[in-house]
Amino acid sequence: MDTKEISAMIERRLASIDMPARPAGLYEPVRYALEGGGKRLRPLLCVQACRACGGSAEDAMEAAMALEMFHNFTLVHDDIMDHSATRRGRASVAAKYGENQAILSGDAMLTLASRLISRVPAGVVPAVMAEFNEMALRVYEGQQLDTEFETRKNVTVGEYFEMISLKTGALLASACRIGALIGGADEATADALYDYGMELGLAFQLRDDWLDTFGDAATFGKPIGGDIINEKETWMLITARHDSHGDLDAILDEDLEPEEKISQVTRLYDRLRVGERCDAAAAEHHALALAALGRAQLADPALREFFEETVDRMASRKL
Amino acid sequence: MDTKEISAMIERRLASIDMPARPAGLYEPVRYALEGGGKRLRPLLCVQACRACGGSAEDAMEAAMALEMFHNFTLVHDDIMDHSATRRGRASVAAKYGENQAILSGDAMLTLASRLISRVPAGVVPAVMAEFNEMALRVYEGQQLDTEFETRKNVTVGEYFEMISLKTGALLASACRIGALIGGADEATADALYDYGMELGLAFQLRDDWLDTFGDAATFGKPIGGDIINEKETWMLITARHDSHGDLDAILDEDLEPEEKISQVTRLYDRLRVGERCDAAAAEHHALALAALGRAQLADPALREFFEETVDRMASRKL
Repeated sequence: MDTKEISAMIERRLASIDMPARPAGLYEPVRYALEGGGKRLRPLLCVQACRACGGSAEDAMEAAMALEMFHNFTLVHDDIMDHSATRRGRASVAAKYGENQAILSGDAMLTLASRLISRVPAGVVPAVMAEFNEMALRVYEGQQLDTEFETRKNVTVGEYFEMISLKTGALLASACRIGALIGGADEATADALYDYGMELGLAFQLRDDWLDTFGDAATFGKPIGGDIINEKETWMLITARHDSHGDLDAILDEDLEPEEKISQVTRLYDRLRVGERCDAAAAEHHALALAALGRAQLADPALREFFEETVDRMASRKL
Repeated sequence: MDTKEISAMIERRLASIDMPARPAGLYEPVRYALEGGGKRLRPLLCVQACRACGGSAEDAMEAAMALEMFHNFTLVHDDIMDHSATRRGRASVAAKYGENQAILSGDAMLTLASRLISRVPAGVVPAVMAEFNEMALRVYEGQQLDTEFETRKNVTVGEYFEMISLKTGALLASACRIGALIGGADEATADALYDYGMELGLAFQLRDDWLDTFGDAATFGKPIGGDIINEKETWMLITARHDSHGDLDAILDEDLEPEEKISQVTRLYDRLRVGERCDAAAAEHHALALAALGRAQLADPALREFFEETVDRMASRKL
């Protein structure tokens, strides 16, 4: 099976996840959230890690569904907390069905994810469930730190990496480890694939931050400069604050029009070469992901290429 | 061990549930929610069902914690959806920490509950987890129906019972079945204790509705008549609407002061003897609970008394 066939299998199975028909008001938003598309990166990593370690795509399918369900659950609840009206070019669940419905249907998604993860092959149920629940707590912890950063102006690069490793890295890393466990990997290989997923996540997030300022508006899908307007504590903002000795905060404290604020901060970034340095940091984690992959003893080495291509694509993507 | 000792053990264990220390902002609301007290009815039923079927209190303790954690999670999210500022005489989590925090810390509580339920004795993990996740979905389904009832004026008594069996009954019933499964009960006894918990829940909810109108304000803890003001679709309201041929809706449609509205509806209830009939319905489910209990083959028949006393207390409680 090639990646395209695996992806098609994932889409097919997502469309037919076992869930009650009624009350329709509870489950329709769940289907809506899952139909929103997205890269399906987490289930794909899980299935490919399982196959690379000697299992079949089918073995990993329930776990893959659980991971995608969990990911979408976090988006449904995040969009309430952030008052985001859109998600992947459509109305968010909160905007379409109301905040209360988004809370309740989101809760149902988390329980459906737990139900799916409990259906992995019997021998690995304890290890996979423990990994899944720890991962979930890490994701909430990352969301918590992200929220706390909003009211702070002294976030360090170390704290930033802690936050994104929890909020973004943990789920990608666990997707790989869970797939590896189901595939029958030894502990060292499961850990190596976990590290691969974590570094992939860090590279992905650094690239995402970079694109928000330096991306092409036509392909990025969101307005350029949103992070600057929101004064989001990204790697670039934190680094520029540290290196500019007060110049960044002076710009942010001024009462500027959004366009002018973006323009002035971007010029400061250019002066400090923060964009290139962010790109270099992403490349560093790209390299660390490949190094971790090198430590994995894959039962099917042909799949190494998939993991290499995935990190190439994510860490240097244009959109 | 007597009931008092079991209850003390539950309190002790609730105060020391394994959870990460930081970020404090995520987990402090979890501890606050658990410290709010309450009857601890669900963990108590679980532990006693386990002991009655031949297990120890310790065997059931992780499941008991999971059930109490789950119950409190639903209260945290319900209080956001209902905009309830108070819970058990204290500020609700949403009021004290904000709605966003209540969403996120509530999510953590659901995952902590899943983690606890996955730690039951290994032999019963699959059955207990399946029961737990099905129960959780039923509770959300009940909440969904309850919300949908708010915008309807043609709810039937049958629909009301479906709603409370999902929203209130399912968790009490599953607490009993999960305890029984851990204790090693045969299927018939696990089912009988499930039915006991379900009937207990229905009697409890009918009594709760009755108290909201006919209770003693000094002991009930909430203002009397809240359900009437909110036109909540309780057994009494539905029955009075059906039997009064338009008189109830005529009162509700009038622009009355709250006190006057409560007074007129209560007089209508008296005229139709709706209060006595609600009490009789509670007594019926009380009897059905005892009948279900009679079908259970208890390894420790001394515990039959606990289950009898519990339903006596719940179905005829004054507060």
